This record gives sequence, structure tokens and C-alpha cells, in this order.
Amino acid sequence: MRLGIGDDAAWLAPDLVVSVDAQVEGVHFLPRFAPYDVLAERAAIAALSDLAAMGARPLATLSSLILPRTLDDAALDRIHEGLARATERYAAPVVGGNLAAGSELSLSTTVLGRTDAPLLRAGARPGDGVYVTGQVGARALGLRALLADRRDDALAPFVEAWIHPTARIAEGLALRGVASACIDVSDGLLADLGHVLVASQVGAELELAALPFAPGYERACVALGVDPLAVALDGGEAYELVFTTPTTPPIAATRIGVIRAEPGVVLREPDGSIRPHVATGFDHFRA
Amino acid sequence: MRLGIGDDAAWLAPDLVVSVDAQVEGVHFLPRFAPYDVLAERAAIAALSDLAAMGARPLATLSSLILPRTLDDAALDRIHEGLARATERYAAPVVGGNLAAGSELSLSTTVLGRTDAPLLRAGARPGDGVYVTGQVGARALGLRALLADRRDDALAPFVEAWIHPTARIAEGLALRGVASACIDVSDGLLADLGHVLVASQVGAELELAALPFAPGYERACVALGVDPLAVALDGGEAYELVFTTPTTPPIAATRIGVIRAEPGVVLREPDGSIRPHVATGFDHFRA
Repeated sequence: MRLGIGDDAAWLAPDLVVSVDAQVEGVHFLPRFAPYDVLAERAAIAALSDLAAMGARPLATLSSLILPRTLDDAALDRIHEGLARATERYAAPVVGGNLAAGSELSLSTTVLGRTDAPLLRAGARPGDGVYVTGQVGARALGLRALLADRRDDALAPFVEAWIHPTARIAEGLALRGVASACIDVSDGLLADLGHVLVASQVGAELELAALPFAPGYERACVALGVDPLAVALDGGEAYELVFTTPTTPPIAATRIGVIRAEPGVVLREPDGSIRPHVATGFDHFRA
Repeated sequence: MRLGIGDDAAWLAPDLVVSVDAQVEGVHFLPRFAPYDVLAERAAIAALSDLAAMGARPLATLSSLILPRTLDDAALDRIHEGLARATERYAAPVVGGNLAAGSELSLSTTVLGRTDAPLLRAGARPGDGVYVTGQVGARALGLRALLADRRDDALAPFVEAWIHPTARIAEGLALRGVASACIDVSDGLLADLGHVLVASQVGAELELAALPFAPGYERACVALGVDPLAVALDGGEAYELVFTTPTTPPIAATRIGVIRAEPGVVLREPDGSIRPHVATGFDHFRA
């Protein structure tokens, strides 16, 4: 039996992994961002993303809701609808839950999954490629737009991306036996890659020109007055997988760099120079 | 595979059960009741009690904490100490967790356990004896004393009982294959027995004279001005097991009644008369 904290989920032998994630109103989301069913669906997907990062197949979820007394029954119904939608989509039925009163809405979701070969943070080796699924920065930009109450044409797709994330379950399963290390981007690309590097006792060099931006991303960043690269490197809640592998991955993913023996992260500009980077740290509401 | 909500924990095949419970400051406890380590230990034991009710052996816990920004690091350390104490005592190591900011302190604890023969709420049959472990009313009285800020000699043992509950893990394990139905008392003796009766589609007759009161319980109730019987029947957070069995149980427990075919609960007075009972319902702070 293997027990412990340190990966996205804990690996409980022989094949069980388990993780918990919480979202709090006013800290992770505001009611004006989306209807409650969508916010609840999103909270469950964020939790399920940790199973993706472990290369696990979802088995079940448990939901602990803390509900302000001002929340009406219709809102609670919507929350349950959203949880049901997410857990049906990922075949992770809700098998338990708890309701408690409190002063603010919070949703803690425990997810259980199965895997015969969990993906861990430790295991990246010098020479391995560094890959990311999907795009970088898109959802973090969407959150910034929501906080600024901007949903104009340039920003709307990114707001939509934040509201409707995907847990990369299929990708995680396909990476078993292929990825030498894996994590999902919840705190930020550099922050989460940093967890892999520390656990693996290696460093990485990233090619900034290789970062996969969504169409219109840089234009939308300009429209909102934020730095595209800073949002891409430090913005959280992407729920994309960042992984390392010595081979060509069997899934759609972009190679953004390489693992090095020397600790730390080097950011390489297109002209070959090295960009200094001061991590700003990701706070949900200072995304 | 068996999945579903309705028992104290969900039974995930082949032998895995899982449950979640939450405690919120201001709803389930106040900081003045006890130091944070003790309150956190208690929250974990409350969650583990659901494993006891299922006849399961604890395997692991996950903790989702929502922390007000005013809570200092020392308090967080104490919370972790208390969780560690409970999870060590019950051999249920913390294998995952989540910290999130919020406006009030809450502790959601997910517990995983193993059992080859889970105790369920359904299964009580007419003629089975109804039993309870430990004493009735003691912890609910302790909570009332805490709310009234009374810790004088008569009440101190009950305050102590509320602050330091026990999860009846050993008793639950011993009842596998013996109890026809089982539940833990979290909402109140009558309310939780009611869950068993509904799930089993039976009723029960309880002998009020048989209710096991702790030494000094009635005197302490008088000192606080509360009705001993009402507190015993409707007070929650006892974390004792209420179970039914056709045989003599192999653990220390008190026979308090018998299962009948007719739905509902009959409360029999010592003189043979039937006591009308209006359930008041258990609210943690109107115990």
C-alpha cells in the first residue's frame, strides 16, 4: 500500500487514487460569473482534473457543500444539477455528500479514481521533452475578464473557456507508461511545472515561442491591458496537463521545452536570449 | 460494484466504503469551546464515526480546510496537530488535503475504509433487539452546557464528553455479521433510529427506563434546566452506535427496545403507558 501527500491525488493501493479540492464563493468565483449549476459543474471538473493528472479513471465523487442560509432551494437544486452533469460526463457518480450551513458558499469535492500505473510528479529526467495539452493562458485570461466584467467579443471565448473547463481524463489515461512525470495546471504553468521539477530533482528550459496560444489570445490580452506571457506563465485554473516524456506523446500536446539536470527554469526568447522571470504567484482573484 | 447514497458511508466494491462530513465554526462549534487542535480532532472523529457505523476499518482520510484570513499560522498548526492525533489514533492517515481561504473556518473530512461485510441501515427485522453503545444524551448535554458557558462540577464531565468523542470503530467491526442494521447517532437517537426504521421498513418500541444515562446525567440536566429525556432522545453528536440484532451482541451495549412490524416509534414508560413524543429535531446550536 502506498500512502502519502505530494502528487495531485494520493495513491491508495492496489489501484485507488483519491483527491479533494474546494472552491469558495468570493475566493474562487463570484455568483455573477455564471449560474450556480455551471459554477458547481466547474468545481467538480477542477477536482476531477487531479485524477487526470494521475492517469486515473474516475470512479466516484463525494460532495461537501457549505451553504449560506440566504441561498434558496432553487440555487441548491442548480448546484446539484451542475454536480450531476460533471459527474455523469466523467462517469464519476456522486456516492456521498454532506450539507452544512455556513456564512458563505463552498464546494469541497472528493474524487476517487483507479489506475494501474499512476502518473507522478517525480520521474522527469534530463532530456525529456516538456509538453502541455491545449492552450496556455486562455482560462486565466477569462478569469481576468470576468473580474473586470468584460465579455466583449475579443474576450468572450476566454470567459467561456474559464467557465467550461475540461478535465483531461482521456489524455491522462493515454499517458500511462509514456509520461515520466505529469501534473495539471491549477496554480500556473511555471508554478505547477515547478512542482514536477522539485519532485524530480531536475530543471527545465522552456521555449517561449513554443507556448500554444489560442487564436486571438494576444489581441484579447492587449484589449484587457494584461501581459500575454505573464498570464500564460503564471495564470492558474487551466486544468491542462503538463507532462514530460522521452518519446513522442500519443495525444495532442505541444512541446514547450526540455528537462535539464540543472535545477530551476530557464525561459528562452526566440532570439536565443534568456528572459528573466519573477513569478508573481497565482491568486485566483489577482490572476 | 455497489454505489449509492443512503447509508452512513457509500460502499464501493469490493470492500471500500467512503464518507464525508463537515464542521463549520459558528454552526457546529465555537472557538471558545476548546483549542483548535481539539476541535479539529473532534471533527475528524465525527467523520470516522461513519466508518464505525458501516463496520469498516479506517484506511485513510482527506481534509479540506477553509480558513479565514484572520486565522494565524499557530492556529493552522494546531488544526493539523488535532487531525494528526485523530487519524493516528484510528490508523487512518491523511493522504490528501486542500487549503482554501474563506470568511469562516470549516473542516470537511473525507474518510475511506474497508469492510468485507458492511453494516447497513436496511435489514432490521421484527423481533430484533435495539441496542445502543455507551450512554445517551451525555454529549448533547455537554454541548448545551458549552453554549450556556457552564462548566461547573455537575456539567464538566459532559462538556468533556462532547469535546472528546469516540468513533466506535472496534464495536462496528465486531458487529459485522451480527447486527441486522446499524447507524451512528449524529442527529439524535430517535432521528437516527428513524433512518434505520425507514430503510428497513419496520417500527420500534423503546423502553424509556432502559435508556443508559451516565452517572450524574439527570442531576446535571436539572442543574442546566433541560429535560433529560428530551436531550437523550433528540440530542445529536453522540457518535454512539444504534444497532439491531436478533442475537446477543458481542460488545458492551444496552438493549433499549425491540423492532416491530408496525411503522413508527412507540416510547414505553416504566408503568407501561405510552409516552407521546414530538421530535424537536436536532440543530447543533439549539441542541
